[in-house]
Amino acid sequence: MKLQLPIGERISLKHGAGGRAMRALIEQVFLEGVDAPLQGIGLAAMDDGAAIPVGERWLVLTTDSHVIHPLFFPGGDIGRLSVAGTVNDLAMMGATEPLALTCSVILEDGFPSADLLRIQKSILATSREAHAPIVTGDTKVMGRGEIDGLVLNTAGVAFTNRVVPDCGLRIGDRIIVTGTMGDHGFAVLAVRHKLALEGELQSDVAPINEMIRGALAAGGQDVVAMKDPTRGGLASALHEMAEKSGVGVLLYQDRIPLSDPVRAAAELLGIDPLHVANEGKAVLGVRPEAAERVLAALHAHPLGRNAAIVGTCMGEHLGRIILDTGLGRRLLTEPEGEPLPRIC
Amino acid sequence: MKLQLPIGERISLKHGAGGRAMRALIEQVFLEGVDAPLQGIGLAAMDDGAAIPVGERWLVLTTDSHVIHPLFFPGGDIGRLSVAGTVNDLAMMGATEPLALTCSVILEDGFPSADLLRIQKSILATSREAHAPIVTGDTKVMGRGEIDGLVLNTAGVAFTNRVVPDCGLRIGDRIIVTGTMGDHGFAVLAVRHKLALEGELQSDVAPINEMIRGALAAGGQDVVAMKDPTRGGLASALHEMAEKSGVGVLLYQDRIPLSDPVRAAAELLGIDPLHVANEGKAVLGVRPEAAERVLAALHAHPLGRNAAIVGTCMGEHLGRIILDTGLGRRLLTEPEGEPLPRIC
Repeated sequence: MKLQLPIGERISLKHGAGGRAMRALIEQVFLEGVDAPLQGIGLAAMDDGAAIPVGERWLVLTTDSHVIHPLFFPGGDIGRLSVAGTVNDLAMMGATEPLALTCSVILEDGFPSADLLRIQKSILATSREAHAPIVTGDTKVMGRGEIDGLVLNTAGVAFTNRVVPDCGLRIGDRIIVTGTMGDHGFAVLAVRHKLALEGELQSDVAPINEMIRGALAAGGQDVVAMKDPTRGGLASALHEMAEKSGVGVLLYQDRIPLSDPVRAAAELLGIDPLHVANEGKAVLGVRPEAAERVLAALHAHPLGRNAAIVGTCMGEHLGRIILDTGLGRRLLTEPEGEPLPRIC
Repeated sequence: MKLQLPIGERISLKHGAGGRAMRALIEQVFLEGVDAPLQGIGLAAMDDGAAIPVGERWLVLTTDSHVIHPLFFPGGDIGRLSVAGTVNDLAMMGATEPLALTCSVILEDGFPSADLLRIQKSILATSREAHAPIVTGDTKVMGRGEIDGLVLNTAGVAFTNRVVPDCGLRIGDRIIVTGTMGDHGFAVLAVRHKLALEGELQSDVAPINEMIRGALAAGGQDVVAMKDPTRGGLASALHEMAEKSGVGVLLYQDRIPLSDPVRAAAELLGIDPLHVANEGKAVLGVRPEAAERVLAALHAHPLGRNAAIVGTCMGEHLGRIILDTGLGRRLLTEPEGEPLPRIC
């Protein structure tokens, strides 16, 4: 059977890279025929997770598979990445106190037990750091050559009184990023391609639920949108938020925090750090009157010391991001996907 | 670093095969350093899932990755298997009304879009059949040769008023199986090895939550233990139940339902059907006074028409299964693991 799918006849790497191509795959395949949820926020919203009303509260549910290569990288490993990824997806829905996580591992026949034990210790340590207990799991083994080493899936549940969507932006709202952009992607890129910058570049992978709890406590209802800029980086996250909210975003380039090693790597490689994945950061949309208050709360947390107000929502260029470079304004492209496969 | 792990220095296929070897891996690695849960039933219980008290109820949480090969097999496919597997794990904890499932897919670069769409339709159909809405997902793509086609993870949540553990057996309790044993494993084996019996052998893969709801309605508190006999089959499930409960089980061989094609395949291949995986069956431990009532409820459901009382719990041979063959009694061995890799 030949399919007339715009995604093409075969899946390719870009379909897993978090940008436009992945959104097309989800819309054309995974949402095909899915019922609109009777209640709550579900798959069709393509948010960081789903939210189901339970009594007076919301039960938030999220899942992530992690296929990063290599398994160990500067600043973290696949175990820390999995736990942080799921904790952060819950937090991006407003659910900053995880109730429980599941952890499912698929291993290749011949995988070193010592590496597995090291990853398990990292999972456990990150789970404790985020106060996110892992309560159940699953183990599968595939043959040699049938899977590259190890992949992990974590799913998470948490209750929240209020769901923060990624589509709540209005004209005038401020865009805040909680720290430097692009660290995770460049760190993985450097170690994979043995760049000279390796060692200086460190992944930012961390559970940020505690920091987000502080921001929500400070901003309350005025925090109107959140998303973690993972695959496809800040550019991808902002495009999705702007498009769903029906606003444009004016972004001030010189206010976007970048570490020196990321700045150097970006210039060396000609890769825009705004297209590159973060694993311990968030993008917040905040009503203008609360922006400084939320920023102060972020600065008070060690993971948010570089937080900055980087943009404003506007009523033109709807669904688009305009970058003010200081010398002029240009359209920030939406990435087709993360430049590097298996970044998370 | 050399590890002194009894599991050995490298993971092997048996560690994912559901039997003794997998239990050793979980105990020696995944439970290493895990905190005892403050409340609820968690990882350390190694049950089909975890249960967390929420108000007056329990929130049950479960996860499964599926790596079956081939993706399409007589009687089902990986999509149906994933949804049914997670729905059934919830049901085995007593939670027969799934609140929501997550679905995470990992694809190989080059995977045919038509196959993906076929699997997605199967996921959706099974989700509707089980009244288990899929509310959120995740998509990753790995390079060619880095993963064999497609693997799926599903996690599920459900509330229940009462958790049915797998350790509630007492002396005198009856063991019920809800239908014929070994169908799934032999069907996959036949198609994979192109046996002549292929076609006659059909996987039993199905969501059984509705059937289990009927059994629980009939048996109430007298249904004291449940487990689905997946990897490692009835023998593995019963060993785990008996060991955790501290009883022995006397099993009557001639009462165990087997389909004719499974009987033929088992003889041909010399594989014990009690060691082989099922994907639409359950093992129930029931107080003797309720056994006939529960059996009648199972018979009233299409998926339970071959249900049978197959054994009795006893105060000797603790943790062991004694098979009454009609000619004498012998120990039923606990499988090291499922005979075939990637059965689910």
